[in-house]
Parts: sequence; structure tokens; C-alpha cells
Amino acid sequence: MEPNVYASDCASRQILNRIGDTWSVLIVASLADGRLRYSELAARIDGISPKMLTQTLRGLERDGMISRTVFPVIPPRVDYELTDLGRSLLGLVRELVVWAEGHIGDVIDARESYDGRATA
Amino acid sequence: MEPNVYASDCASRQILNRIGDTWSVLIVASLADGRLRYSELAARIDGISPKMLTQTLRGLERDGMISRTVFPVIPPRVDYELTDLGRSLLGLVRELVVWAEGHIGDVIDARESYDGRATA
Repeated sequence: MEPNVYASDCASRQILNRIGDTWSVLIVASLADGRLRYSELAARIDGISPKMLTQTLRGLERDGMISRTVFPVIPPRVDYELTDLGRSLLGLVRELVVWAEGHIGDVIDARESYDGRATA
Repeated sequence: MEPNVYASDCASRQILNRIGDTWSVLIVASLADGRLRYSELAARIDGISPKMLTQTLRGLERDGMISRTVFPVIPPRVDYELTDLGRSLLGLVRELVVWAEGHIGDVIDARESYDGRATA
């Protein structure tokens, strides 16, 4: 069977969900320069709840994009790092961030125009 | 203020939500070759509910990525087309689809390995 994201039962659809997900994008981008602790990720990604951070990290680990290292120290220390598969996403993730940050003005203008038409 | 997707109140965060969203990606990719009717989009994107298709099209229109043309015929005909802003997303959207379709094996292997460790 050919991979096909347009088919709802193709695994590539789930993978698209994962790699486009905002929290996943921000975690992968945060790990671009090397491993980080859980607390460092939480501090860097404003607005992510502990539950969502834990759940997204677990999903990324299960999907083979990050690895998790637990250090047997007190208090426990857990580091996260991109795998080779995760690193292969970096170019794409950076482009998503650059596009989002670079087109704020265009999108805000479009929204104002749309909302103006809607209330006219 | 510098654009910063890591800040939860920056508009670029919302834009990242939009452009990574799976339904948005599939709609933008579907419109790569030209305008399509609502019913053609519904047929091409397996598994999208009418409610979700309508809501995502409205969001993409509001954000300036697609335009909507209503033809005054019976039955009504509504076409959707990428704007210049929407077309500027095409490269990125294609890369997301290619990555997702190209890494199914890697992700499935990683999941099996993770699930095997979890139950060991």
C-alpha cells in the first residue's frame, strides 16, 4: 500500500498530526542545540502545562523522535535529547517557526479585513 | 516586540497552531493545483467531518490563506483557492506530507520498541 496522508487510516496521517502539533514543534525546536532537562523545557515553552509537556514528551519518545535519560540522583534528573529521527525534523520545524514569526503582519491584516467584512 | 513563538501571547503562536494543523495542511496541499469546490475537498480529505471542514476553511479564509468564491447558481456553488499568502505555505506543507509519508517505517519501529520496553 502506498503511503497517503489523505487516507484517514494511513499511519502517515497520525505522523502528520504529531509533527505539525505546536507543542511537538516547540519541543523539537528547543532541543536543537542539545539536551535539556524537563524543567528547562517547561521554562522555555511559555504556557505549556506540566500535563501537556509530559504527554507530548512521551508521544515524541514513543514515536522515536527524542530519547529520555534518567540520572539516578536525588532529586531525580531527567534529560531529553533529539534522536537522529528527531534531528531529521529540525529543518522543517525551523521553517514552520520562521514562517509563523515572519507572517504575523499578513495574518493580522487578513483577520481585520475578514472581521470588517463580517460585521459590514 | 520581537516575534517569538515560545511566548504564549505572541500572535505567531496562533499562526503556528494554524499552519501545523493537520486539516489545514491537507486543505492547503489539496489546493496546490488550483481551485476546488467544497464537495471536492470533502471527497479528497478522507475522514474530515463537514463541521471540521467548514470550520477549518473559515479559519484559513480569516487568516488570509484561502479565498472563497460563491457562484449565484442553483444549487449554490462555492470554490476555494489559495491566496498568495497560502501559496507561500506550499513548500512547507509538501515537506510535512513527504516527511510523514516517508518515515512511517521509522515511527512504527520506534513505537513497537517503546511498547515492548513498557510491557517488559
